[in-house]
Amino acid sequence: MPKDGITPRAHDYSQWYLDIVQQADLADYAEVVKGCIVFKPTGYAIWEAIQRGLDERIKATGHVNAYFPLLIPKSFLMKEAEHVEGFAPEVAEVTRASGEELAEPYVIRPTSETIIGYFYSKWVRSYRDLPLLINQWANVMRWEMRTRPFLRTAEFLWQEGHTVHASEEDAERETLMILHDVYADFVEKDMAVPVIKGLKSEKEKFPGALRSYCIEAMMQDGRALQAGTSHNLGQNFARAFDITYTDQNNTIQLAWTTSWGVSTRLIGALIMSHSDDEGLVVPPRLAPTQVVVVPIYKNDTERSAVLAAIQQITADWKGRLRFKIDDRDNLTPGFKFNEWELKGVPIRLEVGPKDVANRSVAIARRDQPGREGKVIAPQAGLTERLTALLDAIQQTLYDRALAFRNARTADVTTYDDLKQQVERGFARCYWAGSTEDEKRIQDETRATIRCIPLEQPQQSGRCVYTGKETTRQVIFARAY
Amino acid sequence: MPKDGITPRAHDYSQWYLDIVQQADLADYAEVVKGCIVFKPTGYAIWEAIQRGLDERIKATGHVNAYFPLLIPKSFLMKEAEHVEGFAPEVAEVTRASGEELAEPYVIRPTSETIIGYFYSKWVRSYRDLPLLINQWANVMRWEMRTRPFLRTAEFLWQEGHTVHASEEDAERETLMILHDVYADFVEKDMAVPVIKGLKSEKEKFPGALRSYCIEAMMQDGRALQAGTSHNLGQNFARAFDITYTDQNNTIQLAWTTSWGVSTRLIGALIMSHSDDEGLVVPPRLAPTQVVVVPIYKNDTERSAVLAAIQQITADWKGRLRFKIDDRDNLTPGFKFNEWELKGVPIRLEVGPKDVANRSVAIARRDQPGREGKVIAPQAGLTERLTALLDAIQQTLYDRALAFRNARTADVTTYDDLKQQVERGFARCYWAGSTEDEKRIQDETRATIRCIPLEQPQQSGRCVYTGKETTRQVIFARAY
Repeated sequence: MPKDGITPRAHDYSQWYLDIVQQADLADYAEVVKGCIVFKPTGYAIWEAIQRGLDERIKATGHVNAYFPLLIPKSFLMKEAEHVEGFAPEVAEVTRASGEELAEPYVIRPTSETIIGYFYSKWVRSYRDLPLLINQWANVMRWEMRTRPFLRTAEFLWQEGHTVHASEEDAERETLMILHDVYADFVEKDMAVPVIKGLKSEKEKFPGALRSYCIEAMMQDGRALQAGTSHNLGQNFARAFDITYTDQNNTIQLAWTTSWGVSTRLIGALIMSHSDDEGLVVPPRLAPTQVVVVPIYKNDTERSAVLAAIQQITADWKGRLRFKIDDRDNLTPGFKFNEWELKGVPIRLEVGPKDVANRSVAIARRDQPGREGKVIAPQAGLTERLTALLDAIQQTLYDRALAFRNARTADVTTYDDLKQQVERGFARCYWAGSTEDEKRIQDETRATIRCIPLEQPQQSGRCVYTGKETTRQVIFARAY
Repeated sequence: MPKDGITPRAHDYSQWYLDIVQQADLADYAEVVKGCIVFKPTGYAIWEAIQRGLDERIKATGHVNAYFPLLIPKSFLMKEAEHVEGFAPEVAEVTRASGEELAEPYVIRPTSETIIGYFYSKWVRSYRDLPLLINQWANVMRWEMRTRPFLRTAEFLWQEGHTVHASEEDAERETLMILHDVYADFVEKDMAVPVIKGLKSEKEKFPGALRSYCIEAMMQDGRALQAGTSHNLGQNFARAFDITYTDQNNTIQLAWTTSWGVSTRLIGALIMSHSDDEGLVVPPRLAPTQVVVVPIYKNDTERSAVLAAIQQITADWKGRLRFKIDDRDNLTPGFKFNEWELKGVPIRLEVGPKDVANRSVAIARRDQPGREGKVIAPQAGLTERLTALLDAIQQTLYDRALAFRNARTADVTTYDDLKQQVERGFARCYWAGSTEDEKRIQDETRATIRCIPLEQPQQSGRCVYTGKETTRQVIFARAY
């Protein structure tokens, strides 16, 4: 049954997404500030949960947080040739302050390699200072006019890690460690979104990087979403900003750097991976509220009895479950059910007079809307049951997303098959084409190489476009 | 014994502060970005601890976090007369983006009353939407040229709460609740800094506020530092941005708003309250590292035995103490002692071969440098002893700061006494003067009314300046 205010996915996926954002109260449009959004409390709470999960992993792998300036002298951007080409067209510039024109304009950071590179060149002196492992949580700005809440906005929030190493191997190890142990681990375990880990093609890599790695997820319309990137910057930024160190033999060496980031676009990935035509679906591990308890009653006597029972039921939940008792008196249970469904709370508990008498509760799973996901359960042992159920829901969401991705991924051997497959999902194929070939394919199909998966086949095959024999497979897809 | 690189407080307090910031590795100067600093990992870790303590209290009192745009249309600033006068002179302006001039410039938020007011006018419809209780963690920018790390920088980090209420009483209750239960509670309990809660004079209040409340702390040079402010904005911003609601009688009413904030200047307050000529002193409740363990050994055999003992000693610390084992092999114990003293870790543990034999440890308190703060203690029961010691250190720091403030606070009855007293600390006095009088006193003494304390005397007295009889006392002091 389609819900008021939500366009069914099958009807218009793009509108469905906007409807979810609005109906679940995740964001507001800042028409007065071009291309920006307000992260409303419900949306921001998801970001806070994402931050916690990532920050924990970033620190557990030896990094510390710091904070660098928002403004970057415009000339800094120019110091790395690819970098300026990639970012100069989309920066916002501060040209006036305290009512006076500035001698040199600043740009609002679109990313911080340059300003951080400047400081690292002051801080790094000896091999003993390496590796330097720093992360920053910050806002960044890229002046984009075609915006979509969370997925593409002029200002967004993110973390950006910036590290310095003594050798290419160390930098490469860091780049891949972040990809595996921080990004893929978080997105798969906490967000319940399966990802493909891979290398970006030359065309798609970060401006200024030696190699860019990424994790790619499939949304429910079969399109790819880049959920995180980790770059081995080689010596490009070290050269541009003179980051050198004295090695054990007292020789001055150019350092190797990396950078890696994920942003509030993960909120978009979360919405588009799990939500349905009833509203948002939030995986239990990230849900700000995991269980909502709705009392059912017809009069004050019933109300007191039901609320007393709920107090008893939830007495040992604190510290074990994140929950809310929705005892608002001016709203019907039906209204509340609808609201919590819209907001994606994983479990709804209903407690009415019959439950008080029978020492039972009704449990409804958000991931299985309707009758199918609803059971009556005894109050005894409820905390353990709910904890286990949250784990089961987390797993179900992951399994479902993985099954969906598998069903929408196909090996293609001809360009015609590729064209058809990118209409519905991921096209996996052998690839020996050039950047020019990739651009042509993009023009013709709107699909790009999302990544060269780290997992590669043992045998070789013919390139889908050039027919050349190769051992390299890639994933083509349309992307957000 | 004065430490290399740290100017003694008695010699030059201002230089001492800068030396501590540098020697404890808290911040770096961003000469290339006028007036900005880099929050280095050691400094940022203190901010993270401050954020945790505040965020917990902000949420426990019913607020939720959200995030609003960094950029504000310049015209928004103009909508509230006092507000524009207060902030327009110090804003940075974005006039160009993607290489094109913007039709209307944006300012980088110096504070967010205006942009948030704009959204609140869209969100608030009915009395049922009130109170609206939102907080934001963000960077802000005020173009100041005379900067001091943490205390006054062009860009700084803060939280700003913005709430909407149905009545003046509700707004006033919120304003004071934040002052008492969030700000004073945090600063006194977690930062171990005693504060005076009070009302700002008309001259010192927030541009656009009806009434500004504040907490004022005394630094070790006797000067005041405003550690947090909470503003009852009355209906000024509601009027400027048309924040109205329909009440129970279906009548449209103008709302009442508040705003309140504390910033990274709290890091400056922390440094200047507790630190000494040996370096930084961090109160245990905020210390990223509470206990550092330094092994003492002369050869590999001793090293193995000592490190094994340390493993055993610290086996049950995880989750109970935040600690670090400094097993760096290329540095002497003396070098390590010095470094951890500089960085303000509350407790240092030394474990050597004798301790292994005697099942003992040496415990050194950072708040009592030298022999005085050092004891030999048995390894048995150590975790409990350290936990209790951290509490004792926290209390000692608070008591010491309070005793200092009391010793440097005096009641003054004549303007001459006031002039003398503000040279060394707080001057408490009866006050019935005008804003003009206050300005004159500032010109002559560089002191201002820091606050009208919430705690007022029962009897009346004569105004220190005009001689008029009054029941109102104020605190005059020089301020950061």
